[in-house]
Amino acid sequence: MSDANAILLLSCPDQKGIVASVSNFIFKHDGNIVHADQHTSQGSKTFFMRIEWELKGFKIPRRKIGQALEPLARQFRMKWDLRFSDDVPRMALFVSRHMHCFHDLILRHSMGEFQAEIPLVISNHLDLKPLARQFSLKFMHFPITPENKARQEEREIRELEKHKIDLVVLARYMQVLSSPFVEAYRNRAINIHHSFLPAFAGGKPYEQAYDRGVKIIGATSHYVTENLDDGPIIAQDVIKISHRDSVNDIVMKGKDLERIVLARAVRLHLENRILVYGSKTVVFE
Amino acid sequence: MSDANAILLLSCPDQKGIVASVSNFIFKHDGNIVHADQHTSQGSKTFFMRIEWELKGFKIPRRKIGQALEPLARQFRMKWDLRFSDDVPRMALFVSRHMHCFHDLILRHSMGEFQAEIPLVISNHLDLKPLARQFSLKFMHFPITPENKARQEEREIRELEKHKIDLVVLARYMQVLSSPFVEAYRNRAINIHHSFLPAFAGGKPYEQAYDRGVKIIGATSHYVTENLDDGPIIAQDVIKISHRDSVNDIVMKGKDLERIVLARAVRLHLENRILVYGSKTVVFE
Amino acid sequence: MSDANAILLLSCPDQKGIVASVSNFIFKHDGNIVHADQHTSQGSKTFFMRIEWELKGFKIPRRKIGQALEPLARQFRMKWDLRFSDDVPRMALFVSRHMHCFHDLILRHSMGEFQAEIPLVISNHLDLKPLARQFSLKFMHFPITPENKARQEEREIRELEKHKIDLVVLARYMQVLSSPFVEAYRNRAINIHHSFLPAFAGGKPYEQAYDRGVKIIGATSHYVTENLDDGPIIAQDVIKISHRDSVNDIVMKGKDLERIVLARAVRLHLENRILVYGSKTVVFE
Amino acid sequence: MSDANAILLLSCPDQKGIVASVSNFIFKHDGNIVHADQHTSQGSKTFFMRIEWELKGFKIPRRKIGQALEPLARQFRMKWDLRFSDDVPRMALFVSRHMHCFHDLILRHSMGEFQAEIPLVISNHLDLKPLARQFSLKFMHFPITPENKARQEEREIRELEKHKIDLVVLARYMQVLSSPFVEAYRNRAINIHHSFLPAFAGGKPYEQAYDRGVKIIGATSHYVTENLDDGPIIAQDVIKISHRDSVNDIVMKGKDLERIVLARAVRLHLENRILVYGSKTVVFE
Repeated sequence: MSDANAILLLSCPDQKGIVASVSNFIFKHDGNIVHADQHTSQGSKTFFMRIEWELKGFKIPRRKIGQALEPLARQFRMKWDLRFSDDVPRMALFVSRHMHCFHDLILRHSMGEFQAEIPLVISNHLDLKPLARQFSLKFMHFPITPENKARQEEREIRELEKHKIDLVVLARYMQVLSSPFVEAYRNRAINIHHSFLPAFAGGKPYEQAYDRGVKIIGATSHYVTENLDDGPIIAQDVIKISHRDSVNDIVMKGKDLERIVLARAVRLHLENRILVYGSKTVVFE
Repeated sequence: MSDANAILLLSCPDQKGIVASVSNFIFKHDGNIVHADQHTSQGSKTFFMRIEWELKGFKIPRRKIGQALEPLARQFRMKWDLRFSDDVPRMALFVSRHMHCFHDLILRHSMGEFQAEIPLVISNHLDLKPLARQFSLKFMHFPITPENKARQEEREIRELEKHKIDLVVLARYMQVLSSPFVEAYRNRAINIHHSFLPAFAGGKPYEQAYDRGVKIIGATSHYVTENLDDGPIIAQDVIKISHRDSVNDIVMKGKDLERIVLARAVRLHLENRILVYGSKTVVFE
Repeated sequence: MSDANAILLLSCPDQKGIVASVSNFIFKHDGNIVHADQHTSQGSKTFFMRIEWELKGFKIPRRKIGQALEPLARQFRMKWDLRFSDDVPRMALFVSRHMHCFHDLILRHSMGEFQAEIPLVISNHLDLKPLARQFSLKFMHFPITPENKARQEEREIRELEKHKIDLVVLARYMQVLSSPFVEAYRNRAINIHHSFLPAFAGGKPYEQAYDRGVKIIGATSHYVTENLDDGPIIAQDVIKISHRDSVNDIVMKGKDLERIVLARAVRLHLENRILVYGSKTVVFE
Repeated sequence: MSDANAILLLSCPDQKGIVASVSNFIFKHDGNIVHADQHTSQGSKTFFMRIEWELKGFKIPRRKIGQALEPLARQFRMKWDLRFSDDVPRMALFVSRHMHCFHDLILRHSMGEFQAEIPLVISNHLDLKPLARQFSLKFMHFPITPENKARQEEREIRELEKHKIDLVVLARYMQVLSSPFVEAYRNRAINIHHSFLPAFAGGKPYEQAYDRGVKIIGATSHYVTENLDDGPIIAQDVIKISHRDSVNDIVMKGKDLERIVLARAVRLHLENRILVYGSKTVVFE
């Protein structure tokens, strides 16, 4: 018998009785709810819920829970996603030349902060190949030029599919993904942008921040969409700077931010805590 | 018909079916749940819940809801507290000579940040009487000496009762309350201590912080207990300092912290978001 | 004999010997330096300094120090500003309908946080007149329409001059100042914008922040320039929000930020700690 | 000719003329000051200064600057320390079983954040040997028991001396150092304690924080002294927690803090920005 939990993420038009129906469904099959969180967006009158219960003692076998949920889902017109706390998602890391986010994710992975596997590292440069090898990670090199971009992305997608990748993490990948790629990994590809979005979107955000003379810099993790730096925001954080900070100082301070904010977003995603609606996220922390 | 919501705060030994039973109770009487939050403490296996639903359309009249809840409460051995979002609690402010917290609470009150009345200001000094008068607040002066303390506190309690006070806020009151007072307002009296508790409990925390050479100072709001600065913590915040800050600089920086942390605690209490268990709090934000 | 200090703020092209020359000037007239801070901008090779020394024992009388500095200033082509720690600048508060920044500035003024006088409060609305009166502040009403704006601003400037105003503080004034006004109070008029600039410039920044789904909101104080929300930034701060926060919640959280950030900028200016160069500030904290 | 800078850190009894004398010393030998920062402690009337100037063009050869400073130092009874920006200090990392601080320091070292060498890693356990080897760091194992502690520390000190170690970093070393060790590396050994000192000194601070119900946890880096967790504080930082956080969650959140706070202290020390006086530090940032 499993010690794992079931985690149900759902959204639907708001109406009376959703909480009661979902919690009854779990209770009448002898499930013990260990966490439940909900939210109703005032504008769109949409109901969001994350509910987690113990499989131990639950009368429906794990593989049949989805099917058992169907009548409820139809009744309330739910979009839903069911996972289990002992699932081990597979994530691919996309990197370029910067090592800080990549190295940090490896560190957290080796400390057990992420319940995930990393079957694949993809880069358009060779710089981080030795580091990947050092940690026994498979490294694939797909150099990108304007001419070969579409073809290379197709090859990348084939590799992702072959390796059954659930989550793509752009750890300072420095390449814009094309529409087919974005479409294939909608809400399953996380980017880190080194500014407090929507300020300083686009290239060289630290230089922009320096030129504007801001007193605080930030970093933003978000799901990748067709519009650069415009996807649903998952996490943000900031740090103070002063007139004393050169662009180099800002870059160095920013690296700490980027590492922490990207890691936070990855963990929230892996723990199935994020619902996307429109251009925004509900994050059940 | 009311546009108000009912807010139920409860705690009980953890077991299966609590969420289902509570949400069913609301659903079967046609209530629409607008917020629900829960928590189970791992150590004591205690279940905590805050659930809010619309009275509009709810089939049980407001004044009979408590009675209707009784069977459920007995079944799960719940401690519970039911309030309504249009309740207007009555709070008494206790002050001494420092004006910053007092003035800040008045400002927030006049901006509508607190849904509460302030029928009474009590002080052991006369310094803030003009400010209280300026805002048309009733000000009572109870000078405290070691000899008259017990008697004066009795008089204060009588005034609190006479004015039907629900919440006592010690806005830098600078006097330790005796046991009978603490007992009378258990979990209904909030203090602000100007340190990051448990560091620098007791007198002159900013001087202590300066002497120790810390790089960050804090403020802590907590419910008042018999042990000084040892009650259940509601909110804390901090601010950076450096070797350049004199004790006076620290005092000035700290005032901003104290104002914000005390106001946050008062608002959380007024919105019925706090459950105390043992020496800790569950804060449903 | 005075217990005050002299405070010299200067900027000039960077070259060898500036620190030595300035500190020698003070030392050879028996001055005791109590603070000194400097900065050299790498891009423009500009040198900035703030140096403070005791007038007690200083051999040059206070009113002749400026004249005595002239040769040094010419030699290094300095722009400089000399003030004294017992100066009491005069500030005018411009307000509209929001009371939080106004009230907060009054509170800080009455606690002695600002060494300044407030001879004048100007508003385009009457809402805050009672509060101004309550604190015995002179309140003048200048309603603004597109038609009368230029004329009203001229009248305002005449009042500012008549009252010998050194600093104009726009405490959520909600009106854009025209060029002649901006020019007259260049680097002497401070605004608070309720966003983390350059994000969400212009109107309704909290609504913009809500719509974009950011996880952090901010406030920015800056000197007023011809371009809206584009002046040299003095101070910024941020606070976390979540999907649970409605626009109203964001507005309320933002009020605390605005109060703190505006007060910080006002204090830094009053303490003569800010040098503007180009579109940026050097802030000697 | 060198592109390096000279960095002079000094402290002495406060008196008139120190800044003038020091800046004159540099100017008259054709030095260009690039940074200068100073502080006077009000209590002890001690003057502190960090001043940095370019060696390029400076008329005194690098190796004779110390000697040339002597008359000035005697005149003002200075304690001083002279270093050069191209010095490469040698640091030893002491670790136990936790990898997060160790791994983080390696990452920063490989990104060039620290201008330092790491000739030696010492541990009382073997757990991190593979990671050290992976990064080609020399790893020495000194298991500690109550019986062998004094002897093992002597051997460690001999290794530190043999490897000409300038800075000892206790990266979650989990062993208290004895007096002779502390004495040998006074103000040259940095520890990270996983609490907001002085709160929760001693063992299991995260458990203590959980039990007390605090809403914020912290980390503190400090120089090692004979009294556990009581040395001069270099850097501190904090992060918010809530009732939802288990001890394990707190441990995980705390790891990020520990990494950042320890790295900040190490960098400040390596950049020669810290002066210790009594039980406190002046940190010139």
